[in-house]
Amino acid sequence: MSQFDNAAVSAHLSHVRIVMVNTTLPANIGSALRAMKTMGLSKLVLVAPKTYPHPDIDALAAGAADLIEQIQIVETLEEAIKDCHIVFGTSARSRTIPWPLLDARPAAELSLNAVVKEQQEVAVIFGREDRGLTNEELAMANYHVTIPVNTDYGVLNVAQAIQVICYEMRMAAIEFTDKIEDPEAKMHVTDDVDMHWDEPLVTHEQMEQFYPHIEKMLADIDFMDPQNPRLLPLRLRRLFGRIQLDRMEYHLLRGIFSRVQALNNGTWKKPKDKEDQI
Amino acid sequence: MSQFDNAAVSAHLSHVRIVMVNTTLPANIGSALRAMKTMGLSKLVLVAPKTYPHPDIDALAAGAADLIEQIQIVETLEEAIKDCHIVFGTSARSRTIPWPLLDARPAAELSLNAVVKEQQEVAVIFGREDRGLTNEELAMANYHVTIPVNTDYGVLNVAQAIQVICYEMRMAAIEFTDKIEDPEAKMHVTDDVDMHWDEPLVTHEQMEQFYPHIEKMLADIDFMDPQNPRLLPLRLRRLFGRIQLDRMEYHLLRGIFSRVQALNNGTWKKPKDKEDQI
Repeated sequence: MSQFDNAAVSAHLSHVRIVMVNTTLPANIGSALRAMKTMGLSKLVLVAPKTYPHPDIDALAAGAADLIEQIQIVETLEEAIKDCHIVFGTSARSRTIPWPLLDARPAAELSLNAVVKEQQEVAVIFGREDRGLTNEELAMANYHVTIPVNTDYGVLNVAQAIQVICYEMRMAAIEFTDKIEDPEAKMHVTDDVDMHWDEPLVTHEQMEQFYPHIEKMLADIDFMDPQNPRLLPLRLRRLFGRIQLDRMEYHLLRGIFSRVQALNNGTWKKPKDKEDQI
Repeated sequence: MSQFDNAAVSAHLSHVRIVMVNTTLPANIGSALRAMKTMGLSKLVLVAPKTYPHPDIDALAAGAADLIEQIQIVETLEEAIKDCHIVFGTSARSRTIPWPLLDARPAAELSLNAVVKEQQEVAVIFGREDRGLTNEELAMANYHVTIPVNTDYGVLNVAQAIQVICYEMRMAAIEFTDKIEDPEAKMHVTDDVDMHWDEPLVTHEQMEQFYPHIEKMLADIDFMDPQNPRLLPLRLRRLFGRIQLDRMEYHLLRGIFSRVQALNNGTWKKPKDKEDQI
C-alpha cells in the first residue's frame, strides 16, 4: 500500500480544476463534487450551468460543502480556463477531429508532472450530458483525453468519467508526491516528460491573442482566406496548442508575424544596407 | 492512446467476478452492472441480496441486459467464491484486521497476471452499504484491497468503489493483453505520453531541412542577422524540436515560409482580387 502525505497530495490537486460545460442535471454536479472530494480535488468551475443552485447538488455532495462554497460560475469556457497552462477536453474515442489524444492515465501523469515541477494550472473540461463538447470547445484544449472503455458499450456518463479522471489525477499526485519527498525515489525517476524550463509558460489567455494574430497575418499575405479558412485555424491550434510556448518564444513568434505584416503592407522596408536586428 | 483487442480484453475480464454481499439498494446493483459493462467485466454474483429482483436495477443497468441475465444469486459468500483462486476483500483503510493489503492498481495487476498467465479465477468482494464486510468475510480473502482516497473524507460508496476497481481491472487487462499479443508493443510501452496520430510524424532528417528554411526566411526579412544570429537558431530548434510536427504541419509551415520569401523578393504579389488558396 502506498504511503503518502495526504495534505501534500491535496495541495497539488488544488491546481487541477474540473470544468463542466452547460450541465443539465444537478445530480451530476453533486456526484462530481463527491468524486472530487473523495479524490482530493477541490476546484469545480461551472460554465453556464442549466440548473444552479439546486437542492439535489447539496444532497449528493453531502460532506463536500466546502467544495460547494468554492464553486466558480462563469459564462464562457474561455473564462473558465484563461489562467490555465494545460487544458484537456474529454472526448469519446469515436471523435473524428484529429487532436493529440491521451488516455486518462498518461494525461494525469502529464498534468501532475506539470503541477508539481512547474507550478502549472490544469483544467479538464467535461461536456453536456447529451452531446459532450462542441468542436469549437474541443479546439480550445491542448489535448483530448479519453477513458479506454469497452468499445462494445458506448461511453461512461459524465459523473463516472469525472470519477475515473479524478482517481487518475489522485494516483498521479500520490506518485509525484512520493517522488518529491523521498530523495531516494527521485534517483530513479526516468520520466522523459521532465523538462526544466527557464521561462514561464504562457497561459491560455495569452494564446487566445496568439491565434488571431497568426490568422490575421496569414490572411494578410493571402495564405488563408478569412471567408473560407477551411481547417487551417484548427490545424494551427492543434500545432501550437501542444507546444506550450514559453514567454520568450511567444514574443519571438509574434514579432515574426508583425514583421511579415509590416513587410506586406509596406510599413517596413528591407534596409538597403542591413546591419539589423533581433 | 493504447490500441487493444477489445474482445480479448473482455475475455480476460470474464475471469474476474464482482461479488456483492447483502446489498440493500437496487440502484447500487444497477450501477455496478453499468460500471462492469463499461469496463468489460461480465460476471456479477449477489450473495443474499436484500432486494432482488427490482425494476431500479434494470433501469440503471440500461444496455447491460445481458449481464443481468448472467447474474448469479447465492446464499453464502463461500458459494460465491468457491471456484476462485484469488479473492480480494474490499476494505476501508482504517480496518484494524491485519491482512495483506494492496492498492487497487497493484491488486488489478496481480489479478490479470494470474488470469492471463495461469487461467485463474478472481473475485472482488464488496460489502454492505452501511457496514461493509464482517471480519469473518474479510478473512475469507487472500488479500484486502483499498482505494487510496482522501483520508480527510471518508470512503467511496459501493458503486463508486466498484467503478474504480473495474476500471483498474480493465487497465491491467489491456496491459496484459498488449503484452501477450504484440511482443513488439512491449518495446515501446515506456513512452508514457503515448499519442494517437493520424498523420505520420516527420523524421529528424526532414527537420534538418526545416531549420535552414525558417532561418533563411528570417534572414530574408531581416528578422535574423545570419552573420550574428545570436540564440535565435537554438531557440527555433528548442521550440520546433519539442513539437514533433506531422507531415501535414511540416508542409503547412514550409508553405508559409515560402510565401513570406516570395512576398519579400517580389516573386509573389498580393492579387488585387483575392480568390486564393489553401
